[in-house]
Amino acid sequence: MQRGSIHDDTCPSFQGALELVGRRWTGSVLAAALQGAHRFGEFRALIDGISDRLLAQRLKELEAEGLIERTVVPSTPVQVHYGLSGEGRALMAALQPLAQWSVRRAARRTGDPEAEAGDHR
Amino acid sequence: MQRGSIHDDTCPSFQGALELVGRRWTGSVLAAALQGAHRFGEFRALIDGISDRLLAQRLKELEAEGLIERTVVPSTPVQVHYGLSGEGRALMAALQPLAQWSVRRAARRTGDPEAEAGDHR
Repeated sequence: MQRGSIHDDTCPSFQGALELVGRRWTGSVLAAALQGAHRFGEFRALIDGISDRLLAQRLKELEAEGLIERTVVPSTPVQVHYGLSGEGRALMAALQPLAQWSVRRAARRTGDPEAEAGDHR
Repeated sequence: MQRGSIHDDTCPSFQGALELVGRRWTGSVLAAALQGAHRFGEFRALIDGISDRLLAQRLKELEAEGLIERTVVPSTPVQVHYGLSGEGRALMAALQPLAQWSVRRAARRTGDPEAEAGDHR
């Protein structure tokens, strides 16, 4: 960002990050990976309501973004593992304050003391 | 979020926050307020390229979200001031780690050491 004026176009990295994490299901896929999902079926089981097509698409996108690492395990039959990259792990850590802000905000709006006290991953 | 499974719909507060901050220009309007803009013309001068229509729309949305406070100053002529609410200030603080992550990521991709060392608001 330049000093003195704010160009939406001079923050492309931040804007890109916001759009990336704002994409539907992306947060859930990253959260499933953080919870230890490795195989496609494990992601599907953890993420309620996602279709195979969308899950495959999100994993592919996140691999292209360098946030998910895809590993082919040379077993019989061959297995494919997905896991957070170091950058993906750093992103999840960087999102914690925003997640906590959103939970505190929701609690203030509903007056739910449990949500206000709770942590959010 | 429930334990054991991830429902995209059970994180509405976080998903809502991601969609809110991912909306084009929203980050710029909040950043301008953080930099001290108060009057409509000050926002317009700080945010390069935003139209009056979009700026008015974003300010209205952010006021409805409780992130921007609108104050009518009883002067002659009447002045309207916009400023970050406490919640808006907390949001900007919560976004700092994500902004820093995005800048470090951009630096790693381009190999720009200045950006890598730099802070990002």
